[in-house]
Amino acid sequence: MSDMKTRVNQAMESALSAFATYKKVSGKERAAFLRLIGEEIKNLGDELVQTVVAESNLPEGRILGERGRTIDQLNKFADLVEEGSWLEATIDVGAPSRQPLPKPDLRRLMVPIGPVVVFGAGNFPLAFSVAGGDTASALAGGNPVVVKGHPAHPKTGELVGKAIEKAVKASSLPEGTFSFIQDSGYESGQLLVQHPVTKAVGFTGSYGGGMALVKLASEREEPIPVFAEMGSINPVVILKEALATEYASIAAKLVASVNMGAGQFCTNPGLVITTKTAGFESFVEELAKQVKATAGSKMFSESVLRNYKLNSEKMFAHSEVILVAQGEEAADSGQVSPAIATVSASDFIQKPTLHEEVFGPFSLLVVCDSEEQVLEVVKSLKGQLTATIHGLESELPEQQELVDNLIEKCGRLLLNGVPTGVEVCAAMQHGGPFPAASDSRFTSVGVSAIKRFVRPVSYQDFPEVMLPAELQNSNPLNIWRTVDNQWTKDSI
Amino acid sequence: MSDMKTRVNQAMESALSAFATYKKVSGKERAAFLRLIGEEIKNLGDELVQTVVAESNLPEGRILGERGRTIDQLNKFADLVEEGSWLEATIDVGAPSRQPLPKPDLRRLMVPIGPVVVFGAGNFPLAFSVAGGDTASALAGGNPVVVKGHPAHPKTGELVGKAIEKAVKASSLPEGTFSFIQDSGYESGQLLVQHPVTKAVGFTGSYGGGMALVKLASEREEPIPVFAEMGSINPVVILKEALATEYASIAAKLVASVNMGAGQFCTNPGLVITTKTAGFESFVEELAKQVKATAGSKMFSESVLRNYKLNSEKMFAHSEVILVAQGEEAADSGQVSPAIATVSASDFIQKPTLHEEVFGPFSLLVVCDSEEQVLEVVKSLKGQLTATIHGLESELPEQQELVDNLIEKCGRLLLNGVPTGVEVCAAMQHGGPFPAASDSRFTSVGVSAIKRFVRPVSYQDFPEVMLPAELQNSNPLNIWRTVDNQWTKDSI
Repeated sequence: MSDMKTRVNQAMESALSAFATYKKVSGKERAAFLRLIGEEIKNLGDELVQTVVAESNLPEGRILGERGRTIDQLNKFADLVEEGSWLEATIDVGAPSRQPLPKPDLRRLMVPIGPVVVFGAGNFPLAFSVAGGDTASALAGGNPVVVKGHPAHPKTGELVGKAIEKAVKASSLPEGTFSFIQDSGYESGQLLVQHPVTKAVGFTGSYGGGMALVKLASEREEPIPVFAEMGSINPVVILKEALATEYASIAAKLVASVNMGAGQFCTNPGLVITTKTAGFESFVEELAKQVKATAGSKMFSESVLRNYKLNSEKMFAHSEVILVAQGEEAADSGQVSPAIATVSASDFIQKPTLHEEVFGPFSLLVVCDSEEQVLEVVKSLKGQLTATIHGLESELPEQQELVDNLIEKCGRLLLNGVPTGVEVCAAMQHGGPFPAASDSRFTSVGVSAIKRFVRPVSYQDFPEVMLPAELQNSNPLNIWRTVDNQWTKDSI
Repeated sequence: MSDMKTRVNQAMESALSAFATYKKVSGKERAAFLRLIGEEIKNLGDELVQTVVAESNLPEGRILGERGRTIDQLNKFADLVEEGSWLEATIDVGAPSRQPLPKPDLRRLMVPIGPVVVFGAGNFPLAFSVAGGDTASALAGGNPVVVKGHPAHPKTGELVGKAIEKAVKASSLPEGTFSFIQDSGYESGQLLVQHPVTKAVGFTGSYGGGMALVKLASEREEPIPVFAEMGSINPVVILKEALATEYASIAAKLVASVNMGAGQFCTNPGLVITTKTAGFESFVEELAKQVKATAGSKMFSESVLRNYKLNSEKMFAHSEVILVAQGEEAADSGQVSPAIATVSASDFIQKPTLHEEVFGPFSLLVVCDSEEQVLEVVKSLKGQLTATIHGLESELPEQQELVDNLIEKCGRLLLNGVPTGVEVCAAMQHGGPFPAASDSRFTSVGVSAIKRFVRPVSYQDFPEVMLPAELQNSNPLNIWRTVDNQWTKDSI
């Protein structure tokens, strides 16, 4: 048996053994554990910040923000599980004298599914990585987690992993509640997904990487769900009046969004769709001006940089794709600068390769002859994480068909904003129709992400004393419940 | 192109075209449509009842009950979508002056996923078939449905399909909202699952049939979810004190449940686990007595009968499996009568083939030497739809470990009842860990079944006038919503 196989078996068996204990830990205790992870991450102090900066090439300000987001996520899941209403406690009180048959007493709530494997993302070394949203939501749901760290930031992963292990120990939880595995290759990832103990997988990354895991998981004797968030080109549609009057501010917002974090956001606006109407020429000039005024930045790894160059070249190999502007960058600096190109709507619709994501600070402007063609472009799109409309309030009401078609394609629809910047809140949907995500019915950001890692169980005709607190008549935890189809906090 | 391919393409394209209209139909109108389907089924009157009796070999009383259940299900989904709180409307109100960044306004609700393919079940010609729970929940969620009828009851399927088509027409909905396809072979089923327009599949049937669909769906360019409810042996654990004092009534309940509907229930109690303690011999005698007093009945098709005989023979080919009793049946009657056999716990744990379902009126009694061995047997089980404990209140509190282990294996845990009889209500969980169902996170009975066929979408910074009614500040539909993490019906 290879060393890696031994390590994976050990981590998964340890997770299974921990599950028996961890699933029974109360919401309050789980909340305290999640908050403690956040504190331990904060306690890593400047060492962590400098390590992430060095491994990710991202500026310190961004890393401080991402650290804050990571801790904030853990605290939000802590609040959720401490309060308890998220368990969807549902009670249908029995009616033993119902005719012709007695009505049983049924009480349902969510229980954890079991050990979850999380793949750390490259582009968010903290917020979507070892202690990121997938880990936080799986732990919040009562599931042990085994993280496979991203090879681009091994030291960051090691530091955060140790912080979680410290929190596990201080909370007197079994060791297997959390394990961290580092591997520069693919072996451990494959073994983790294939391991019979694994019940679900969380992943954020490329389409190729995500689909490889989906395939592995579907070929298991017991197929398991893979929640893969696989990126998107995040179309932005600019309506006529907005184009005519707001072109300058839209161009400025877009270029800033395209360039944010060296374009390494899954919500990067990689596609802009507009008509060639009043304001169009000025809009293009403004885009060019903004792009040229933007400094270059470094990507998080050599391989991401290589792929960006390769995919850009592929894009420009289409003679129909015309460069609008590209930022300045020093030769051999290893930096990238934003690039914007245009293509006609008819070419875009006809060539599926123009729909591929160029992961990095690139955006393609699709030029339409008419509003009908804008709709055709939208209909030709694959599933997306986000879609955005720029429009004045006066022109929106007649765009219901556009809205309907964009909703069909995305998980989040924005008005007059930029898709980068994914708020962590209950109403966030970060996911979308395939291939943006492998399962459109769930989100990977926000507290609803916990729903991926739980399943419902019904208790039939159980006495009060044997029921979980959430389902007892007296409602001792004072949570919201559905009792005989009515939402209430009342006792029964 | 084969005729069937043309028919499938036509049905799916028609479903896609209907989707654009049907997804925008209000909850109230969808509710009226669902209720009308129920009325049209009732209007089929005695012709439907006699057709089902003839095609299913099930007694008229059962069919009348099943028809009532089918209409009741449609009405329950109608109530759900008319009221509207099920959409999980979630609002995080924006805070434009938040520092360092403005907080966007985010509003999330559920939208339909698109055309759903439903496979009619053999064992419930009405309640899990053409207008059964899968169809009702998919239509309730706003999705067009294409049903592949079960070959065992083509005339029943045709009648019910026509009733739905009548309701579609009377509700002025597009024709493609519902299509019915009949096929005695596998071709149409394969084509329906593979069709690019199909977004999800509902299935109730065998493990082999369900997994064939899961595989087909996972091999698509766009993998889609298959909700396959694939059966179960539904373990029943009898605790010591209950065995000693209640053996006679438990035996009577069990045999009646095993024999219900000629054993053709997915919740049939196919496994009974108990210790060889006081009352055991009397319990076995009582089982034998009850079995012998039970008349034979006909199964719903020749192929189900053939498989029952085949699987029974396989079971009894194990020399460790001893027949306790088998009911009387006339030779060449084509009937089956209940059969109960015993096996030792150690043999059961060692032989995975003894864990296979024998679909029909068969149950295997696993005899344990100790309560520890009962736990071992439970731990050796695969995922189940249900699990049942028979026990006195006095002996339950010390059985928490047994409860925890059974919860790990099932979707519904019953006390002192029989698993057959699946109440249609909000707190029902009909599903369970693999291989009982292909996705343990959803139910196929009860109003929560609608969750399989919807996905969340967030609107960011949309003006009131462009938002769906459910998300508008004034809460015009007066539904329950989560506003800034609080459950409320208040307007904003």
